[in-house]
Amino acid sequence: MRVAVIGATGYGSAELIRILENHPYVELETLISSSQAGEELGSVFPHLSQRELSLEELDLDQLAERVDGVFSATPAGVSGELLPELVERGVIAIDLAGDFRLEAADYQTWYSKEPAPSKWLSEAVYGLSEWTADQVKKARLVTNPGCYPTATLLALLPLVRAGVIAKGPVMIDGKSGVSGAGRGLKQSSLFCEVEGNLFPYKVAEHQHTPEIERYLSMIGGDPRTVTFTPQIVPMSRGILTTIYAPVESGWRTDQVREVIERAYREKPFIRLCESGRWPRTKDVAGSNFCDLQVKVDERTGMVIAAAVIDNLMKGAAGQAVQNLNLMMEWPESTGLSMLPVYP
Amino acid sequence: MRVAVIGATGYGSAELIRILENHPYVELETLISSSQAGEELGSVFPHLSQRELSLEELDLDQLAERVDGVFSATPAGVSGELLPELVERGVIAIDLAGDFRLEAADYQTWYSKEPAPSKWLSEAVYGLSEWTADQVKKARLVTNPGCYPTATLLALLPLVRAGVIAKGPVMIDGKSGVSGAGRGLKQSSLFCEVEGNLFPYKVAEHQHTPEIERYLSMIGGDPRTVTFTPQIVPMSRGILTTIYAPVESGWRTDQVREVIERAYREKPFIRLCESGRWPRTKDVAGSNFCDLQVKVDERTGMVIAAAVIDNLMKGAAGQAVQNLNLMMEWPESTGLSMLPVYP
Amino acid sequence: MRVAVIGATGYGSAELIRILENHPYVELETLISSSQAGEELGSVFPHLSQRELSLEELDLDQLAERVDGVFSATPAGVSGELLPELVERGVIAIDLAGDFRLEAADYQTWYSKEPAPSKWLSEAVYGLSEWTADQVKKARLVTNPGCYPTATLLALLPLVRAGVIAKGPVMIDGKSGVSGAGRGLKQSSLFCEVEGNLFPYKVAEHQHTPEIERYLSMIGGDPRTVTFTPQIVPMSRGILTTIYAPVESGWRTDQVREVIERAYREKPFIRLCESGRWPRTKDVAGSNFCDLQVKVDERTGMVIAAAVIDNLMKGAAGQAVQNLNLMMEWPESTGLSMLPVYP
Amino acid sequence: MRVAVIGATGYGSAELIRILENHPYVELETLISSSQAGEELGSVFPHLSQRELSLEELDLDQLAERVDGVFSATPAGVSGELLPELVERGVIAIDLAGDFRLEAADYQTWYSKEPAPSKWLSEAVYGLSEWTADQVKKARLVTNPGCYPTATLLALLPLVRAGVIAKGPVMIDGKSGVSGAGRGLKQSSLFCEVEGNLFPYKVAEHQHTPEIERYLSMIGGDPRTVTFTPQIVPMSRGILTTIYAPVESGWRTDQVREVIERAYREKPFIRLCESGRWPRTKDVAGSNFCDLQVKVDERTGMVIAAAVIDNLMKGAAGQAVQNLNLMMEWPESTGLSMLPVYP
Repeated sequence: MRVAVIGATGYGSAELIRILENHPYVELETLISSSQAGEELGSVFPHLSQRELSLEELDLDQLAERVDGVFSATPAGVSGELLPELVERGVIAIDLAGDFRLEAADYQTWYSKEPAPSKWLSEAVYGLSEWTADQVKKARLVTNPGCYPTATLLALLPLVRAGVIAKGPVMIDGKSGVSGAGRGLKQSSLFCEVEGNLFPYKVAEHQHTPEIERYLSMIGGDPRTVTFTPQIVPMSRGILTTIYAPVESGWRTDQVREVIERAYREKPFIRLCESGRWPRTKDVAGSNFCDLQVKVDERTGMVIAAAVIDNLMKGAAGQAVQNLNLMMEWPESTGLSMLPVYP
Repeated sequence: MRVAVIGATGYGSAELIRILENHPYVELETLISSSQAGEELGSVFPHLSQRELSLEELDLDQLAERVDGVFSATPAGVSGELLPELVERGVIAIDLAGDFRLEAADYQTWYSKEPAPSKWLSEAVYGLSEWTADQVKKARLVTNPGCYPTATLLALLPLVRAGVIAKGPVMIDGKSGVSGAGRGLKQSSLFCEVEGNLFPYKVAEHQHTPEIERYLSMIGGDPRTVTFTPQIVPMSRGILTTIYAPVESGWRTDQVREVIERAYREKPFIRLCESGRWPRTKDVAGSNFCDLQVKVDERTGMVIAAAVIDNLMKGAAGQAVQNLNLMMEWPESTGLSMLPVYP
Repeated sequence: MRVAVIGATGYGSAELIRILENHPYVELETLISSSQAGEELGSVFPHLSQRELSLEELDLDQLAERVDGVFSATPAGVSGELLPELVERGVIAIDLAGDFRLEAADYQTWYSKEPAPSKWLSEAVYGLSEWTADQVKKARLVTNPGCYPTATLLALLPLVRAGVIAKGPVMIDGKSGVSGAGRGLKQSSLFCEVEGNLFPYKVAEHQHTPEIERYLSMIGGDPRTVTFTPQIVPMSRGILTTIYAPVESGWRTDQVREVIERAYREKPFIRLCESGRWPRTKDVAGSNFCDLQVKVDERTGMVIAAAVIDNLMKGAAGQAVQNLNLMMEWPESTGLSMLPVYP
Repeated sequence: MRVAVIGATGYGSAELIRILENHPYVELETLISSSQAGEELGSVFPHLSQRELSLEELDLDQLAERVDGVFSATPAGVSGELLPELVERGVIAIDLAGDFRLEAADYQTWYSKEPAPSKWLSEAVYGLSEWTADQVKKARLVTNPGCYPTATLLALLPLVRAGVIAKGPVMIDGKSGVSGAGRGLKQSSLFCEVEGNLFPYKVAEHQHTPEIERYLSMIGGDPRTVTFTPQIVPMSRGILTTIYAPVESGWRTDQVREVIERAYREKPFIRLCESGRWPRTKDVAGSNFCDLQVKVDERTGMVIAAAVIDNLMKGAAGQAVQNLNLMMEWPESTGLSMLPVYP
């Protein structure tokens, strides 16, 4: 299968290339970039300099002939228009941006951009692989989940489906490495501003909030608002979400652990930490794993759940390839067996 | 005034020495260490090698003659016995450990150690300088607050005193640099285990939980349980606590900001961030500042507060010297005017 | 092929496991550890918790029956005795320690330990894969090069073989991430001691000095002494060696670049950086690549060469597997096609 | 004394403000910035938000009336024109840029900019405080040394003056934290590009090369070329230079150590590490110290010297204030007694 990566100069795309170059059924045909067309891959990403490939301008018709599928990792507001054109030309598409994740009104509110055509918003399938595999298998257009929502939903969905969580406020404290902010030039992404630093941003305003709420309702059957606070941590990769929710009476830690264990028994990328051990971002770095742990605090009647992922892998490129595998009916882990790089 | 530092080989003590060497009214007379007695300061801490001073064994009688005050930074369970002996010999004492912070029963439960004599538990004054200055001024024995409780209480106390917080769960998501774990040899403190890593520990089991609850009640008049989750962040210094609490109806962000502003108007070390800017740990690194921000999330009815401190300064040595200044009726900022080191 | 890893609790062994688990022709049969026998792999290395395997005590006879090959990553002084026993029982062995790299007298001088039996010192083949492949293919016992010597020799050997370097002092300024110091508990490996820190150690005393000299002479035909200064850099992985040597008159940068290009034209893991771009450790992180660059400073008559490797990959586990591939006459890159993880 | 900082938005200026705010004889009157005039200090540098001060446009006449001295930290090519104007108006000036450090021809060659007027190039005094104090005391215009030259010359000058170094190549391997690259937006300064990364740049082309050579000759009386290789290390602050030079026969380590000790006996900021201990950048972080060590490698006939400084302190703002103290005949350490911040 021949594929292209559109928007090829960001960190998510570098990660896609790293995976696809060793994927047994995929040939990486071309890289599309509007900002750096004409450059060599090795000049944009010296760590990939052994691979000869040039970045190219987008030409829709030509691209549709050269490839069978695309991964799109453009800034918000671009893929909403672009990908339908490719899908109509018979190319399957996986979008790593947020353009197809929300209903039109919510997209406008939280992204302050024009939404994608509503026909395509309906057609796009949310690719949270462990929960929506059946729909993904039939999709032509998959919208890959956001990094924070992936970690959050993987921890919360088993709990809401099993009725563990009571009425009341759900708090999601998210922490992310700075690669989530991309490779663009911003003062707040400079080494000297991030090293030794830790801070919240977009508090109660982050666009992943409505995404979490939407799919908690759609997949989990639990419509509720959540409070979400993202924070930048001085590391390149990794997300930890710590989730606080009121627990229905009667549930104890071991029972809730069992709920999670049962939910993911057959899922190769989800690991429940052994009892008493909490997830660490570095244990999943460079891999497609999501590590989980949960505890009921009987003193306060709250359940605390924690999930870690590599934001560029399970939170972006890894899950995107997992979705491609599902769409193509290849084994779900194809090309994704790389283990975490530690330390 | 001549002072000693007891338990002089940890990071908190290095910070005490850094401050005291430039404090205009204090002479650092000696350093006490049971584990490294006989060594030169410059060999234990090469960054202080310009200062000639040897570490010494503890000799209570002799020490009481040589100094007027002590800072004690021993492991938990040591100062509870030691400091009363010194205070009875006329030395004033500031304890950076947790031995005098809790009631006897809670200490036993959360620290799994024998509590200090109850007479001294009653006499010891909790040195949260901005809130307990009047008692500290009269004290002979001050128990310096823990690092997480300092950040948490400085953010929460104005809110509970003003009635901003409604009934319901209060969640404290704490994040700390690894210097909080001390200079002891543990696999989990190795560079390769911490760099690029982020993880919760002692979830709902940390000994700072009852300390927060006790003083929220004693100082804030608000007895309630809290859920507290500490987490290690790959940096040496700094604490950020992100606090989630249900807000009484009617409060809006600007009003809550005003509550904080009013509470700390005269306090030189507390800075409320300008509207829209969130506290960053690095903005206080190396200084005694605490930076605060707060926001009401009207969608969910929660108030979110964030506080940052340097865990070794306002969270330990800085606040300890601030308490000494209060005890001696010196200006509160004496020796603490150093600005944050950025970047 | 069934293999074992002996000394399985260090970072080099974690890296071996990461590679071997995805190696198509190898089955990781067992892990040997004297210090943590009985523990589960997932408890020693949580990042590998999806793999069920227990650490075992060493039993030579039993091991020789269960496996066809071993990787040994024990502390210095252990494998010198151990591996001959296994090789005599028909097991092929690759040693990642320094026990077989030097002549007996030099080993005693620089390692302050008893050398391995001289018969085995002679039999062991130095596995600098790009330069000694022919001997490695016939070997039963391969001594894997040290991390600093690998980077240094890969840069220097083409130059000395081509006569680029004149008489005079050769200086090797080595810089390494702290994983090279292992997972043992040392104050100097603590996060707070390494973060933001940079310092030389073992100046002109490091045991890799005679290793560089020996193989510069044996492989390069150039017997000379070198000055080698290792330094610790605040990062987990990666080595950069910057090499200064007097240049024979007449050589210019482009000519010396061509010497390197020609030397490694057929070598899949050696990349000469494009003109003007210098190697960066992160461009090889997690991979078996070595990136090189060279420049003639005509003002001073010196040639400056720089090499980067991932110390745990090309500097240890990666090259060890490369050597296994050679010994087994499998394609040299088998199991080593993973690309660098960036950022 | 009233002073201004010109070019007030960089890291060096933040450090100047940190020092000057606690300097007993200096009043920080104003901050000049062409790029961010009109902004509040606390918005440019939130860590300084307790200080109310606005950035202003430059108005030469007005400035000359308001202040007695200026620190100038503009990009290369600006101060060469600007500072003479101020000096002529009776203001003393300390330039942290490179505009007055070289002869006109060398400046043009290495900086590719127009040199400052030759009259002023002659008048400007090189402010390597420990070596040129006598001239600095009489100067109206001081050119503050570069960061790499400061570390290098402090290590080398005692050796060349004592005749320790023989004929032959001198190699200077420089390593710097990334704050040296400034606060400007460059891809190579992004956290994700620097973290875990280490690489040479401007090899044999860095503009500090002729500065080292010039003052090695002028102050040390030793005209020679040097090879200088700068490298970026993943940390914010700190410089380590490792210097390799041929040693005159007969010199041994302890004798060379004595040369250094004697040279700096009266100098409060220079610390010779105890025998066997090598300088570490973190031991001087946030302070004006320079730590030194030296060793004669008798096997190879080379002497190896290492120096560490905080590039923003002794390598920039700290030395600049030290020079102001000299110019004003205040005690040399005034305002500079802050100890290193560790860890």
